Amino acid sequence: MFYYSEVLFKSLKRTHWVDITSDVQQSIQQSAIENGLCTISSLHTTGSVTLNENADPDVEADFFKKLNELIPQEKYFRHSEGNSDSHLKTSLVGLSVQLPVRNGHLVLGTWQSVYFCEFDGPRNRKVSVTIIG
Amino acid sequence: MFYYSEVLFKSLKRTHWVDITSDVQQSIQQSAIENGLCTISSLHTTGSVTLNENADPDVEADFFKKLNELIPQEKYFRHSEGNSDSHLKTSLVGLSVQLPVRNGHLVLGTWQSVYFCEFDGPRNRKVSVTIIG
Amino acid sequence: MFYYSEVLFKSLKRTHWVDITSDVQQSIQQSAIENGLCTISSLHTTGSVTLNENADPDVEADFFKKLNELIPQEKYFRHSEGNSDSHLKTSLVGLSVQLPVRNGHLVLGTWQSVYFCEFDGPRNRKVSVTIIG
Repeated sequence: MFYYSEVLFKSLKRTHWVDITSDVQQSIQQSAIENGLCTISSLHTTGSVTLNENADPDVEADFFKKLNELIPQEKYFRHSEGNSDSHLKTSLVGLSVQLPVRNGHLVLGTWQSVYFCEFDGPRNRKVSVTIIG
Repeated sequence: MFYYSEVLFKSLKRTHWVDITSDVQQSIQQSAIENGLCTISSLHTTGSVTLNENADPDVEADFFKKLNELIPQEKYFRHSEGNSDSHLKTSLVGLSVQLPVRNGHLVLGTWQSVYFCEFDGPRNRKVSVTIIG
Repeated sequence: MFYYSEVLFKSLKRTHWVDITSDVQQSIQQSAIENGLCTISSLHTTGSVTLNENADPDVEADFFKKLNELIPQEKYFRHSEGNSDSHLKTSLVGLSVQLPVRNGHLVLGTWQSVYFCEFDGPRNRKVSVTIIG
């Protein structure tokens, strides 16, 4: 069985995490697939999909402070849109995550949530959810 | 066909690679799936799953020396557990790898092994192995 | 349904992007799978697979300038081949990408292409394409 859907949302700042866990879980329920593999992919080149801590918001703040310190908007960047830092961060954090589906639910660790990782917001964003079972 | 299993192990240091290739291969044998896709995912937010060199242990030493130099435990981190470096490294190295299964075996390159990449050990860890075929 | 193929090519410089989007699309056509999941994986430990911008070549130049600045060939690396920087970059950018297949076509965002990300070329390289549907 194959199920495809898209999750649409707005990011609010240049860099932040958007929690899309419940949207993904909703796609799984709509798919009616009980056991399989769920792939969540960014359809952009300046925003990633990842898993990370869902409890303490300081983790998100530290994550972006350090990453933006390592990869700032360098003056030497030639790309005219001025967001080459966002393109590099997107490939480093990665475009997608894959998670098992069991008994109609995402298999996540206790502290894991699914995040769209915005590196060049605020923008309208779109993520694909593909379920095979 | 769908097969799900979990691999449990202990990491031994704050940062190191744990080779889980043979555990994954064992899951494939138990699944009896001959051809398909195998997804190996970390169930944590301070440890990744990746592929890397299986021959010279100096690669592992250089890997962590450089990565820990780039992303140390910064004094400015606000997350009270003091492991924000581990959370960032986990999203950068990534939560999972996907590999083809052919004739009941993982398709790996000559120099590739599957590693759990520990960023905040020593700990008890758990990785999911999902096979679709 | 399961389809496996390999894409072979030569990289031309120590670090650059090789666009393999049309090779992947060709594999999908050969598979005759209409709807499913396509996984593109590097069979190496010094070269990644990622998605990134397909329009302005300055993005590629900025990407490698910044990444090579962060992770140069350090004199302290002990691995005798002298390419520990390539091994680290490979795990950071990641070994594979997963994309939905709909109506016989890869689902890519407007600005996305599939790249082999060479970190230790020039070399002969091989990428696996696995399609499940």
